[in-house]
Amino acid sequence: MKLVLDAMGGDHAPDQIVKGALEVLDDLGEDRLVLVGDESRLQELLKARPDWQDYLSVVHAPEVIGMDESPVDALRRKRKSSIAMMAKMASDGEADVVISAGNTGACVASCQLRMRLLPGVLRPGILVIFPTMNGPVAICDVGANVTPKPVHLHQYAAMGCLYMQAVVGIQSPTVGLMSIGEEDTKGNDLIKKANQMLREDAHLEFIGNVEAREVLNKPCDVIVCDGFVGNVVLKMAEGIAEGLFRAVNHELTRLKPELVQEFKPIMQSVYAQHDHTEYGGAPLLGVDGFCIICHGASDARAIRNAILRARELAQTGINQKLVDWLQEIPVSELEAS
Amino acid sequence: MKLVLDAMGGDHAPDQIVKGALEVLDDLGEDRLVLVGDESRLQELLKARPDWQDYLSVVHAPEVIGMDESPVDALRRKRKSSIAMMAKMASDGEADVVISAGNTGACVASCQLRMRLLPGVLRPGILVIFPTMNGPVAICDVGANVTPKPVHLHQYAAMGCLYMQAVVGIQSPTVGLMSIGEEDTKGNDLIKKANQMLREDAHLEFIGNVEAREVLNKPCDVIVCDGFVGNVVLKMAEGIAEGLFRAVNHELTRLKPELVQEFKPIMQSVYAQHDHTEYGGAPLLGVDGFCIICHGASDARAIRNAILRARELAQTGINQKLVDWLQEIPVSELEAS
Repeated sequence: MKLVLDAMGGDHAPDQIVKGALEVLDDLGEDRLVLVGDESRLQELLKARPDWQDYLSVVHAPEVIGMDESPVDALRRKRKSSIAMMAKMASDGEADVVISAGNTGACVASCQLRMRLLPGVLRPGILVIFPTMNGPVAICDVGANVTPKPVHLHQYAAMGCLYMQAVVGIQSPTVGLMSIGEEDTKGNDLIKKANQMLREDAHLEFIGNVEAREVLNKPCDVIVCDGFVGNVVLKMAEGIAEGLFRAVNHELTRLKPELVQEFKPIMQSVYAQHDHTEYGGAPLLGVDGFCIICHGASDARAIRNAILRARELAQTGINQKLVDWLQEIPVSELEAS
Repeated sequence: MKLVLDAMGGDHAPDQIVKGALEVLDDLGEDRLVLVGDESRLQELLKARPDWQDYLSVVHAPEVIGMDESPVDALRRKRKSSIAMMAKMASDGEADVVISAGNTGACVASCQLRMRLLPGVLRPGILVIFPTMNGPVAICDVGANVTPKPVHLHQYAAMGCLYMQAVVGIQSPTVGLMSIGEEDTKGNDLIKKANQMLREDAHLEFIGNVEAREVLNKPCDVIVCDGFVGNVVLKMAEGIAEGLFRAVNHELTRLKPELVQEFKPIMQSVYAQHDHTEYGGAPLLGVDGFCIICHGASDARAIRNAILRARELAQTGINQKLVDWLQEIPVSELEAS
């Protein structure tokens, strides 16, 4: 298997990306890594491991798409960017898996364009695993599709279930639909229609609408949502977690400074349990291939996990299963899209 | 001023509602409270304060709309419910302010129908104050309008600014638009169009899009959003906060049980700083009158604060200011709605 890594994407690129790649070399077996990015910078960083050429190769990409650039514009202007070249390698059969912590929009757009979608898939979706005390919850979509139609959400349910079966090992995943009330009548038009579709699909174990308040209680295995809402939810969770830990630390320092050190392992343990880097990036599901999108703040450990998880994902046969599943969704729904 | 309180609404009604009402009696001055609900139950609870009749009266409402009932159906069937009667009192000139911790949808629908909207207002919005370490942030809308048009979001910006000026005392409030990236081009169609409108309005100090991750950093004074998204954000924040505190407590008990007691005041202090009940309910802005929607879980203290804040709000003249402000928004935008 050939795993291609965008060495220039993310807040800590290329240093942490290369570091993550080097950490994983001994676990790759027969597989090969390819780093795409500024050749001279990468070779400099790779010196940390003198025998790197036995495991990985470098493809030179002279351009970089910034984290805040408009995806479509940037892809048009920067054909020699690491993201554009990576997606092209996938379409040319030179990459089985592509991995990037760079501009998410550019990554989605280039993979959708170059890899194309699996037969029957209408829109790709990004799936994120949300760690909770009761086990992992998959949320799909979290930003690939910010103007979804009901049938897209229906397909995200199938993607989420197959992922939880194949990767997390949950045999009969339950599905919920993110809304603003548990009753079927709550939500906007998109949600009401999607609720009806999900309820009518006998292949799904649909539990109904779920509220954001319940996510950390793991109300179900898969939560389906609008990509705009999913992205907001993800970032809200991050912001609230960071903010509360900061507030706790502030109050601890103010009221009981002698306990700050004592409390550190507690924080670290809670952090570790909710650490999304453990799950190694978010797959873009629905494309004909494998694309893993990592958090922009990814460090070497997150990249290392993403590479290992990406290999596992590519070996599950999930894409063929998705194609088979989607054939079972009534044609009327597809036409309604 | 006549303040009418839905005594039957909320998870802890009528006990905590009546308790909150009794706690506030000595601070009412010339104003009168009216409790709407099951007369005999309320009179039983009011016995705790033998002179209650000097300050408040009871209006009998034989029906109650449950928290999970479909608002439109329930209002149609239960004309003698506390919510329906409260809104009718407002339309009959018998209430200056109505307050409920009951079914939010029913409350919004009945107030919109009975009180009607202020001249120029297209849709009402619920505004919530989000307490942060850097001061309060107003978020509007959080659930009154789950299918907003861009011009509705524009009006919510005006409502939010007037509220922050009148109630929180911020002279020149800054406004942000909730999206999934800071750039103007990020978001769905609704957000892109609303961004443009907000940017073109010279009366607003618009800072651009803000991400949910930043809310606790208080990136601006007012955050405008789609009511579906705002409601999800609010509930996500609650769920994450509860979940993390539970996780911290769990780890503390597991790893350092001797510190559980020591840590309690820290938690309490952080809680107090982020306690939304301090801000006493969320106003439904845009209706011709004053309606305060309290959290379903409101206790006596939350109800007490809501009553006091509602009085303050009704004295600010915010509704006339809103009517004046909206006259300045170009007619072309209103037509586009």
